[in-house]
Amino acid sequence: MTTGRLFGIGLGPGDPELITLKALRHLQAAQVIAYPTAKAGHGNALKTASPHLSPSQTLLPLVYPVTAGPEADQPDYLDRMYRFYDETSTQLAELMDGGQDIALLCAGDPFVYGSFMYWYKRLNERYQTVIIPGISSIFAGPIAAGTPWVSRNDTLTVIPGTLPEADIVSRLEQGDAIAIIKLGRTFKKVRQALAKSGRLAQAVYVERATMTNQNVQAVKDVTPGNVPYFSMIFVPGSEVG
Amino acid sequence: MTTGRLFGIGLGPGDPELITLKALRHLQAAQVIAYPTAKAGHGNALKTASPHLSPSQTLLPLVYPVTAGPEADQPDYLDRMYRFYDETSTQLAELMDGGQDIALLCAGDPFVYGSFMYWYKRLNERYQTVIIPGISSIFAGPIAAGTPWVSRNDTLTVIPGTLPEADIVSRLEQGDAIAIIKLGRTFKKVRQALAKSGRLAQAVYVERATMTNQNVQAVKDVTPGNVPYFSMIFVPGSEVG
Repeated sequence: MTTGRLFGIGLGPGDPELITLKALRHLQAAQVIAYPTAKAGHGNALKTASPHLSPSQTLLPLVYPVTAGPEADQPDYLDRMYRFYDETSTQLAELMDGGQDIALLCAGDPFVYGSFMYWYKRLNERYQTVIIPGISSIFAGPIAAGTPWVSRNDTLTVIPGTLPEADIVSRLEQGDAIAIIKLGRTFKKVRQALAKSGRLAQAVYVERATMTNQNVQAVKDVTPGNVPYFSMIFVPGSEVG
Repeated sequence: MTTGRLFGIGLGPGDPELITLKALRHLQAAQVIAYPTAKAGHGNALKTASPHLSPSQTLLPLVYPVTAGPEADQPDYLDRMYRFYDETSTQLAELMDGGQDIALLCAGDPFVYGSFMYWYKRLNERYQTVIIPGISSIFAGPIAAGTPWVSRNDTLTVIPGTLPEADIVSRLEQGDAIAIIKLGRTFKKVRQALAKSGRLAQAVYVERATMTNQNVQAVKDVTPGNVPYFSMIFVPGSEVG
Protein backbone atom coordinates (compact mmCIF):
# COMPACT_ATOMS: atom_id res chain seq x y z
CA MET A 1 0.00 0.00 0.00
CA THR A 2 1.25 3.47 -0.87
CA THR A 3 1.37 6.02 1.96
CA GLY A 4 -1.02 8.92 1.43
CA ARG A 5 0.12 12.47 0.73
CA LEU A 6 -0.73 15.82 2.30
CA PHE A 7 -2.03 18.59 0.00
CA GLY A 8 -2.15 22.08 1.52
CA ILE A 9 -4.68 23.77 -0.71
CA GLY A 10 -4.89 27.55 -0.87
CA LEU A 11 -8.53 28.32 -1.69
CA GLY A 12 -8.31 32.07 -2.18
CA PRO A 13 -10.43 34.82 -0.61
CA GLY A 14 -13.87 33.17 -0.58
CA ASP A 15 -15.50 33.20 -4.01
CA PRO A 16 -15.47 29.51 -5.09
CA GLU A 17 -14.60 30.66 -8.62
CA LEU A 18 -11.33 32.19 -7.33
CA ILE A 19 -9.66 28.87 -6.67
CA THR A 20 -6.99 27.84 -9.13
CA LEU A 21 -7.16 25.00 -11.65
CA LYS A 22 -4.40 23.27 -9.70
CA ALA A 23 -6.25 23.58 -6.38
CA LEU A 24 -9.37 22.18 -8.04
CA ARG A 25 -7.52 19.19 -9.47
CA HIS A 26 -5.98 18.18 -6.15
CA LEU A 27 -9.14 18.98 -4.20
CA GLN A 28 -11.19 16.64 -6.34
CA ALA A 29 -8.61 13.83 -6.28
CA ALA A 30 -8.22 13.56 -2.48
CA GLN A 31 -10.09 10.89 -0.51
CA VAL A 32 -10.19 13.01 2.65
CA ILE A 33 -11.08 16.71 2.91
CA ALA A 34 -9.75 18.08 6.22
CA TYR A 35 -10.67 21.61 7.24
CA PRO A 36 -10.12 23.81 10.29
CA THR A 37 -13.25 25.26 11.85
CA ALA A 38 -14.43 26.99 15.00
CA LYS A 39 -16.72 25.01 17.33
CA ALA A 40 -19.74 26.83 15.93
CA GLY A 41 -19.98 26.84 12.15
CA HIS A 42 -18.21 25.04 9.31
CA GLY A 43 -15.40 27.44 8.48
CA ASN A 44 -14.88 29.73 5.51
CA ALA A 45 -12.52 27.29 3.84
CA LEU A 46 -15.16 24.57 3.58
CA LYS A 47 -17.72 27.05 2.29
CA THR A 48 -15.37 27.98 -0.56
CA ALA A 49 -14.51 24.37 -1.39
CA SER A 50 -18.01 22.89 -1.08
CA PRO A 51 -19.26 23.50 -4.63
CA HIS A 52 -16.27 21.52 -5.91
CA LEU A 53 -16.57 18.43 -3.66
CA SER A 54 -18.34 15.12 -4.27
CA PRO A 55 -20.35 13.02 -1.78
CA SER A 56 -17.78 10.20 -2.03
CA GLN A 57 -15.13 12.30 -0.26
CA THR A 58 -14.75 12.03 3.52
CA LEU A 59 -15.08 15.31 5.41
CA LEU A 60 -12.83 15.68 8.45
CA PRO A 61 -13.41 18.80 10.57
CA LEU A 62 -10.44 19.91 12.70
CA VAL A 63 -12.16 21.86 15.46
CA TYR A 64 -10.11 24.65 17.10
CA PRO A 65 -10.28 24.39 20.92
CA VAL A 66 -9.96 28.19 21.19
CA THR A 67 -10.92 30.91 18.73
CA ALA A 68 -9.39 34.30 18.01
CA GLY A 69 -11.05 36.70 20.42
CA PRO A 70 -10.81 37.27 24.17
CA GLU A 71 -9.79 33.63 24.73
CA ALA A 72 -6.58 34.25 22.80
CA ASP A 73 -5.36 36.47 25.67
CA GLN A 74 -5.44 33.65 28.24
CA PRO A 75 -2.05 32.34 29.42
CA ASP A 76 -2.68 28.76 28.28
CA TYR A 77 -3.77 29.79 24.77
CA LEU A 78 -0.59 28.69 23.00
CA ASP A 79 -0.35 25.42 24.93
CA ARG A 80 -3.89 24.52 24.01
CA MET A 81 -3.34 25.40 20.36
CA TYR A 82 -0.10 23.41 20.11
CA ARG A 83 -1.79 20.40 21.75
CA PHE A 84 -4.57 20.73 19.15
CA TYR A 85 -2.06 20.76 16.27
CA ASP A 86 -0.22 17.77 17.78
CA GLU A 87 -3.36 15.70 18.24
CA THR A 88 -4.88 16.48 14.84
CA SER A 89 -1.51 15.81 13.17
CA THR A 90 -1.57 12.31 14.68
CA GLN A 91 -5.08 11.88 13.28
CA LEU A 92 -3.98 13.03 9.79
CA ALA A 93 -0.86 10.82 9.95
CA GLU A 94 -2.97 7.74 10.69
CA LEU A 95 -5.12 8.39 7.62
CA MET A 96 -2.05 8.83 5.41
CA ASP A 97 -0.50 5.67 6.88
CA GLY A 98 -3.72 3.98 5.78
CA GLY A 99 -3.04 5.12 2.20
CA GLN A 100 -5.42 8.06 1.98
CA ASP A 101 -4.50 11.36 0.32
CA ILE A 102 -5.62 14.36 2.37
CA ALA A 103 -6.59 17.78 1.04
CA LEU A 104 -6.16 20.19 3.94
CA LEU A 105 -8.16 23.32 3.15
CA CYS A 106 -6.55 26.73 3.66
CA ALA A 107 -8.53 29.96 3.37
CA GLY A 108 -6.40 32.42 1.36
CA ASP A 109 -2.79 31.32 0.99
CA PRO A 110 -1.23 28.47 3.04
CA PHE A 111 1.94 30.37 4.07
CA VAL A 112 0.38 33.77 4.81
CA TYR A 113 -1.18 33.89 8.30
CA GLY A 114 -2.50 30.34 7.90
CA SER A 115 -3.00 27.44 10.32
CA PHE A 116 -1.64 25.12 7.67
CA MET A 117 1.94 26.00 8.62
CA TYR A 118 1.51 24.30 12.02
CA TRP A 119 0.38 21.03 10.45
CA TYR A 120 3.05 21.31 7.77
CA LYS A 121 5.75 21.66 10.43
CA ARG A 122 4.54 18.49 12.18
CA LEU A 123 4.02 16.33 9.06
CA ASN A 124 6.26 17.60 6.27
CA GLU A 125 9.30 15.47 7.12
CA ARG A 126 7.38 12.22 7.37
CA TYR A 127 4.89 12.58 4.48
CA GLN A 128 5.03 13.78 0.90
CA THR A 129 3.57 17.28 0.99
CA VAL A 130 2.34 19.44 -1.89
CA ILE A 131 1.42 23.08 -1.26
CA ILE A 132 -0.80 25.02 -3.66
CA PRO A 133 -0.66 28.82 -3.30
CA GLY A 134 -3.91 30.78 -3.19
CA ILE A 135 -4.99 34.42 -3.43
CA SER A 136 -4.77 35.95 0.04
CA SER A 137 -7.93 37.80 1.03
CA ILE A 138 -5.61 40.74 1.80
CA PHE A 139 -5.17 41.19 -1.95
CA ALA A 140 -8.85 40.85 -2.77
CA GLY A 141 -9.76 43.98 -0.75
CA PRO A 142 -8.36 46.71 -3.02
CA ILE A 143 -9.78 44.96 -6.08
CA ALA A 144 -13.22 44.73 -4.47
CA ALA A 145 -13.00 48.48 -3.85
CA GLY A 146 -11.71 49.21 -7.37
CA THR A 147 -8.83 51.24 -5.92
CA PRO A 148 -5.29 50.83 -7.34
CA TRP A 149 -3.07 49.89 -4.42
CA VAL A 150 0.70 49.27 -4.81
CA SER A 151 2.79 50.68 -7.66
CA ARG A 152 6.32 51.61 -8.74
CA ASN A 153 8.69 51.94 -5.75
CA ASP A 154 6.02 51.68 -3.06
CA THR A 155 6.62 49.41 -0.12
CA LEU A 156 3.68 47.24 0.91
CA THR A 157 3.19 46.62 4.63
CA VAL A 158 0.67 44.21 6.15
CA ILE A 159 0.01 45.10 9.80
CA PRO A 160 -1.90 42.88 12.27
CA GLY A 161 -4.39 45.03 14.20
CA THR A 162 -3.35 43.09 17.31
CA LEU A 163 -0.08 45.10 17.56
CA PRO A 164 0.19 47.96 20.10
CA GLU A 165 -1.17 51.27 18.83
CA ALA A 166 2.24 52.99 18.76
CA ASP A 167 3.66 50.22 16.55
CA ILE A 168 0.75 50.55 14.14
CA VAL A 169 1.22 54.33 13.97
CA SER A 170 4.94 54.10 13.19
CA ARG A 171 4.37 51.49 10.47
CA LEU A 172 1.63 53.64 8.92
CA GLU A 173 3.98 56.64 8.95
CA GLN A 174 6.88 54.77 7.36
CA GLY A 175 4.96 52.62 4.87
CA ASP A 176 3.43 53.41 1.48
CA ALA A 177 0.68 50.93 0.55
CA ILE A 178 -0.83 49.37 3.67
CA ALA A 179 -3.12 46.50 4.66
CA ILE A 180 -4.37 46.08 8.23
CA ILE A 181 -5.78 42.68 9.18
CA LYS A 182 -7.06 40.94 12.33
CA LEU A 183 -9.69 43.58 13.01
CA GLY A 184 -12.85 42.88 15.01
CA ARG A 185 -12.21 44.04 18.58
CA THR A 186 -9.01 45.85 17.51
CA PHE A 187 -10.91 48.19 15.17
CA LYS A 188 -11.15 51.26 17.46
CA LYS A 189 -7.42 51.19 18.18
CA VAL A 190 -6.66 50.82 14.48
CA ARG A 191 -8.89 53.73 13.52
CA GLN A 192 -7.15 55.89 16.12
CA ALA A 193 -3.75 54.88 14.73
CA LEU A 194 -4.92 55.81 11.21
CA ALA A 195 -6.04 59.23 12.47
CA LYS A 196 -2.77 59.85 14.37
CA SER A 197 -0.67 58.97 11.33
CA GLY A 198 -2.72 61.22 9.05
CA ARG A 199 -3.90 58.32 6.88
CA LEU A 200 -7.54 57.96 7.96
CA ALA A 201 -9.00 59.92 5.04
CA GLN A 202 -7.60 57.48 2.44
CA ALA A 203 -8.30 54.29 4.42
CA VAL A 204 -10.85 51.84 2.99
CA TYR A 205 -12.63 49.08 4.92
CA VAL A 206 -13.52 45.82 3.14
CA GLU A 207 -15.58 43.08 4.74
CA ARG A 208 -15.79 39.59 3.20
CA ALA A 209 -14.11 40.53 -0.10
CA THR A 210 -15.40 38.47 -3.08
CA MET A 211 -18.10 36.77 -0.97
CA THR A 212 -21.78 37.36 -1.71
CA ASN A 213 -22.17 39.65 1.32
CA GLN A 214 -19.10 41.79 0.49
CA ASN A 215 -19.13 45.30 1.99
CA VAL A 216 -16.85 48.25 1.12
CA GLN A 217 -16.85 51.54 3.10
CA ALA A 218 -14.59 54.44 4.02
CA VAL A 219 -13.05 53.56 7.41
CA LYS A 220 -14.34 56.80 8.89
CA ASP A 221 -17.94 55.69 8.19
CA VAL A 222 -17.68 52.24 9.82
CA THR A 223 -19.58 51.44 13.04
CA PRO A 224 -16.91 49.89 15.31
CA GLY A 225 -19.25 47.39 17.01
CA ASN A 226 -20.10 45.67 13.71
CA VAL A 227 -16.63 44.73 12.52
CA PRO A 228 -16.02 40.96 12.09
CA TYR A 229 -12.56 39.38 12.41
CA PHE A 230 -12.60 38.57 8.68
CA SER A 231 -12.36 42.08 7.37
CA MET A 232 -9.45 44.28 6.36
CA ILE A 233 -8.44 47.90 5.88
CA PHE A 234 -6.19 49.11 3.12
CA VAL A 235 -4.52 52.42 2.34
CA PRO A 236 -3.36 53.05 -1.25
CA GLY A 237 0.31 53.84 -1.93
CA SER A 238 1.49 56.58 -4.28
CA GLU A 239 -0.97 57.75 -6.90
CA VAL A 240 -0.99 56.02 -10.29
CA GLY A 241 -0.10 58.60 -12.96
CA MET B 1 -24.23 47.44 -30.79
CA THR B 2 -23.12 46.92 -27.18
CA THR B 3 -19.90 48.62 -26.11
CA GLY B 4 -17.18 46.13 -25.17
CA ARG B 5 -15.88 45.67 -21.65
CA LEU B 6 -12.38 45.64 -20.16
CA PHE B 7 -11.32 42.59 -18.12
CA GLY B 8 -8.13 42.97 -16.07
CA ILE B 9 -7.13 39.37 -15.60
CA GLY B 10 -4.68 38.40 -12.86
CA LEU B 11 -2.88 35.30 -14.16
CA GLY B 12 -0.87 34.38 -11.09
CA PRO B 13 2.86 33.65 -10.79
CA GLY B 14 3.50 31.80 -14.05
CA ASP B 15 2.31 28.18 -13.91
CA PRO B 16 -0.70 28.11 -16.30
CA GLU B 17 -2.48 25.84 -13.80
CA LEU B 18 -2.33 28.59 -11.15
CA ILE B 19 -4.90 30.78 -12.87
CA THR B 20 -8.33 30.85 -11.25
CA LEU B 21 -11.55 29.43 -12.68
CA LYS B 22 -12.87 32.98 -12.96
CA ALA B 23 -9.80 34.18 -14.87
CA LEU B 24 -10.14 31.21 -17.22
CA ARG B 25 -13.81 31.92 -17.90
CA HIS B 26 -13.27 35.58 -18.80
CA LEU B 27 -10.04 34.83 -20.67
CA GLN B 28 -11.79 32.37 -22.96
CA ALA B 29 -14.83 34.61 -23.55
CA ALA B 30 -12.96 37.73 -24.72
CA GLN B 31 -12.59 38.50 -28.43
CA VAL B 32 -9.31 40.38 -27.91
CA ILE B 33 -6.36 39.30 -25.75
CA ALA B 34 -4.18 42.34 -25.01
CA TYR B 35 -0.86 41.85 -23.24
CA PRO B 36 2.07 44.03 -22.26
CA THR B 37 5.46 42.92 -23.49
CA ALA B 38 9.01 44.18 -23.91
CA LYS B 39 10.23 44.79 -27.47
CA ALA B 40 12.07 41.47 -27.45
CA GLY B 41 9.94 38.52 -26.41
CA HIS B 42 6.26 37.92 -25.78
CA GLY B 43 5.92 38.64 -22.08
CA ASN B 44 5.39 36.32 -19.14
CA ALA B 45 1.66 37.05 -19.02
CA LEU B 46 1.06 35.69 -22.54
CA LYS B 47 3.17 32.60 -21.79
CA THR B 48 0.93 31.83 -18.80
CA ALA B 49 -2.30 32.45 -20.72
CA SER B 50 -1.34 30.72 -23.99
CA PRO B 51 -2.43 27.16 -23.15
CA HIS B 52 -5.92 28.51 -22.45
CA LEU B 53 -6.44 30.56 -25.63
CA SER B 54 -8.02 29.61 -28.94
CA PRO B 55 -6.91 30.57 -32.49
CA SER B 56 -10.13 32.57 -32.99
CA GLN B 57 -9.05 35.18 -30.42
CA THR B 58 -7.18 38.29 -31.59
CA LEU B 59 -3.79 38.86 -29.94
CA LEU B 60 -2.89 42.50 -29.32
CA PRO B 61 0.65 43.09 -28.01
CA LEU B 62 1.15 46.37 -26.11
CA VAL B 63 4.87 46.96 -26.55
CA TYR B 64 6.61 48.96 -23.80
CA PRO B 65 8.78 51.72 -25.29
CA VAL B 66 11.20 51.41 -22.36
CA THR B 67 11.98 48.46 -20.11
CA ALA B 68 13.00 48.26 -16.47
CA GLY B 69 16.76 48.55 -16.41
CA PRO B 70 19.22 51.40 -17.04
CA GLU B 71 16.70 53.14 -19.34
CA ALA B 72 14.37 53.64 -16.37
CA ASP B 73 16.88 56.13 -14.92
CA GLN B 74 16.63 58.53 -17.87
CA PRO B 75 14.83 61.82 -17.24
CA ASP B 76 12.14 61.25 -19.89
CA TYR B 77 11.27 57.74 -18.65
CA LEU B 78 7.97 58.69 -17.04
CA ASP B 79 6.88 60.88 -19.95
CA ARG B 80 7.52 58.09 -22.41
CA MET B 81 5.66 55.57 -20.27
CA TYR B 82 2.64 57.85 -19.78
CA ARG B 83 2.51 58.54 -23.52
CA PHE B 84 2.58 54.78 -24.11
CA TYR B 85 -0.34 54.24 -21.69
CA ASP B 86 -2.28 57.11 -23.31
CA GLU B 87 -1.78 55.82 -26.85
CA THR B 88 -2.53 52.19 -26.08
CA SER B 89 -5.60 53.23 -24.07
CA THR B 90 -6.93 54.97 -27.19
CA GLN B 91 -6.31 51.77 -29.12
CA LEU B 92 -8.16 49.67 -26.52
CA ALA B 93 -11.00 52.20 -26.38
CA GLU B 94 -11.52 51.97 -30.16
CA LEU B 95 -11.84 48.19 -29.95
CA MET B 96 -14.38 48.46 -27.12
CA ASP B 97 -16.30 51.13 -29.02
CA GLY B 98 -16.44 48.56 -31.82
CA GLY B 99 -18.15 46.13 -29.45
CA GLN B 100 -15.22 43.89 -28.58
CA ASP B 101 -14.53 42.61 -25.06
CA ILE B 102 -10.87 42.84 -24.13
CA ALA B 103 -8.99 40.58 -21.74
CA LEU B 104 -5.95 42.55 -20.60
CA LEU B 105 -3.42 40.09 -19.22
CA CYS B 106 -1.73 40.85 -15.89
CA ALA B 107 1.14 38.76 -14.55
CA GLY B 108 0.50 38.15 -10.85
CA ASP B 109 -2.21 40.40 -9.40
CA PRO B 110 -3.58 43.48 -11.27
CA PHE B 111 -3.32 45.90 -8.31
CA VAL B 112 0.06 44.82 -6.93
CA TYR B 113 2.96 46.40 -8.86
CA GLY B 114 1.10 45.91 -12.15
CA SER B 115 0.91 47.94 -15.38
CA PHE B 116 -2.82 47.29 -15.47
CA MET B 117 -3.46 50.13 -13.00
CA TYR B 118 -2.33 52.69 -15.60
CA TRP B 119 -4.81 51.44 -18.21
CA TYR B 120 -7.49 51.10 -15.56
CA LYS B 121 -7.04 54.73 -14.57
CA ARG B 122 -7.45 55.86 -18.19
CA LEU B 123 -10.41 53.62 -19.12
CA ASN B 124 -12.35 52.74 -15.98
CA GLU B 125 -14.70 55.71 -16.04
CA ARG B 126 -15.71 55.28 -19.67
CA TYR B 127 -15.95 51.47 -19.96
CA GLN B 128 -17.34 48.69 -17.84
CA THR B 129 -14.34 47.15 -16.12
CA VAL B 130 -14.04 43.83 -14.32
CA ILE B 131 -10.89 42.99 -12.34
CA ILE B 132 -9.96 39.43 -11.45
CA PRO B 133 -7.39 39.07 -8.66
CA GLY B 134 -4.47 36.68 -9.13
CA ILE B 135 -1.74 35.13 -6.99
CA SER B 136 1.16 37.56 -6.83
CA SER B 137 4.50 35.92 -7.63
CA ILE B 138 5.69 37.41 -4.33
CA PHE B 139 3.55 34.82 -2.53
CA ALA B 140 4.68 31.91 -4.69
CA GLY B 141 8.31 32.25 -3.56
CA PRO B 142 8.04 30.92 0.03
CA ILE B 143 5.82 28.06 -1.14
CA ALA B 144 8.32 27.12 -3.86
CA ALA B 145 10.98 27.01 -1.13
CA GLY B 146 8.73 25.08 1.29
CA THR B 147 9.47 27.60 4.04
CA PRO B 148 6.63 28.89 6.28
CA TRP B 149 6.65 32.67 5.95
CA VAL B 150 4.16 34.91 7.84
CA SER B 151 2.35 33.86 11.01
CA ARG B 152 0.60 35.15 14.14
CA ASN B 153 1.40 38.82 14.83
CA ASP B 154 4.13 39.16 12.21
CA THR B 155 4.10 42.16 9.94
CA LEU B 156 4.76 41.47 6.27
CA THR B 157 6.80 44.03 4.33
CA VAL B 158 7.38 44.01 0.58
CA ILE B 159 10.43 46.13 -0.30
CA PRO B 160 11.40 47.15 -3.85
CA GLY B 161 15.14 46.58 -4.35
CA THR B 162 15.21 49.93 -6.16
CA LEU B 163 15.03 51.84 -2.82
CA PRO B 164 18.22 53.36 -1.34
CA GLU B 165 20.27 50.91 0.72
CA ALA B 166 19.65 52.70 4.03
CA ASP B 167 15.87 52.49 3.50
CA ILE B 168 16.10 48.78 2.80
CA VAL B 169 18.19 48.24 5.94
CA SER B 170 15.75 50.08 8.20
CA ARG B 171 12.76 48.19 6.81
CA LEU B 172 14.58 44.88 7.27
CA GLU B 173 15.35 45.84 10.87
CA GLN B 174 11.79 46.87 11.70
CA GLY B 175 9.89 44.21 9.77
CA ASP B 176 9.18 40.55 10.53
CA ALA B 177 8.39 38.58 7.36
CA ILE B 178 9.96 40.22 4.31
CA ALA B 179 9.85 40.04 0.53
CA ILE B 180 12.29 41.96 -1.66
CA ILE B 181 11.38 42.40 -5.32
CA LYS B 182 12.74 44.25 -8.37
CA LEU B 183 16.12 42.58 -8.16
CA GLY B 184 18.42 42.17 -11.20
CA ARG B 185 20.91 45.02 -11.08
CA THR B 186 19.89 45.93 -7.50
CA PHE B 187 20.95 42.54 -6.15
CA LYS B 188 24.38 43.49 -4.74
CA LYS B 189 22.92 46.43 -2.81
CA VAL B 190 20.12 44.24 -1.46
CA ARG B 191 22.54 41.54 -0.32
CA GLN B 192 24.59 44.18 1.48
CA ALA B 193 21.44 45.51 3.20
CA LEU B 194 20.55 41.98 4.30
CA ALA B 195 24.03 41.54 5.80
CA LYS B 196 23.94 44.94 7.57
CA SER B 197 20.55 44.19 9.12
CA GLY B 198 21.65 40.76 10.31
CA ARG B 199 19.12 38.93 8.13
CA LEU B 200 21.31 37.48 5.39
CA ALA B 201 21.56 33.99 6.91
CA GLN B 202 17.78 33.42 6.74
CA ALA B 203 17.23 35.05 3.34
CA VAL B 204 16.09 32.82 0.47
CA TYR B 205 16.32 33.64 -3.24
CA VAL B 206 13.62 32.37 -5.63
CA GLU B 207 13.81 32.75 -9.39
CA ARG B 208 10.78 32.12 -11.64
CA ALA B 209 8.63 30.58 -8.89
CA THR B 210 6.17 27.94 -10.22
CA MET B 211 7.64 28.08 -13.75
CA THR B 212 9.41 25.06 -15.24
CA ASN B 213 12.86 26.63 -14.72
CA GLN B 214 12.23 27.57 -11.06
CA ASN B 215 15.38 28.01 -8.95
CA VAL B 216 15.62 28.28 -5.14
CA GLN B 217 18.89 29.12 -3.32
CA ALA B 218 20.20 30.69 -0.11
CA VAL B 219 20.87 34.37 -0.94
CA LYS B 220 24.47 34.03 0.25
CA ASP B 221 25.11 31.41 -2.48
CA VAL B 222 23.72 33.44 -5.40
CA THR B 223 26.05 34.77 -8.14
CA PRO B 224 25.06 38.46 -8.46
CA GLY B 225 25.62 38.70 -12.23
CA ASN B 226 23.00 36.03 -12.97
CA VAL B 227 19.97 37.55 -11.24
CA PRO B 228 17.02 38.34 -13.56
CA TYR B 229 14.48 41.09 -12.80
CA PHE B 230 11.78 38.46 -12.25
CA SER B 231 13.15 36.97 -9.08
CA MET B 232 12.54 37.67 -5.39
CA ILE B 233 14.07 37.26 -1.96
CA PHE B 234 12.12 36.42 1.14
CA VAL B 235 12.96 36.28 4.84
CA PRO B 236 10.67 34.23 7.13
CA GLY B 237 8.97 35.91 10.08
CA SER B 238 8.78 34.42 13.56
CA GLU B 239 9.19 30.66 13.83
CA VAL B 240 6.09 28.49 13.60
CA GLY B 241 5.74 26.59 16.91
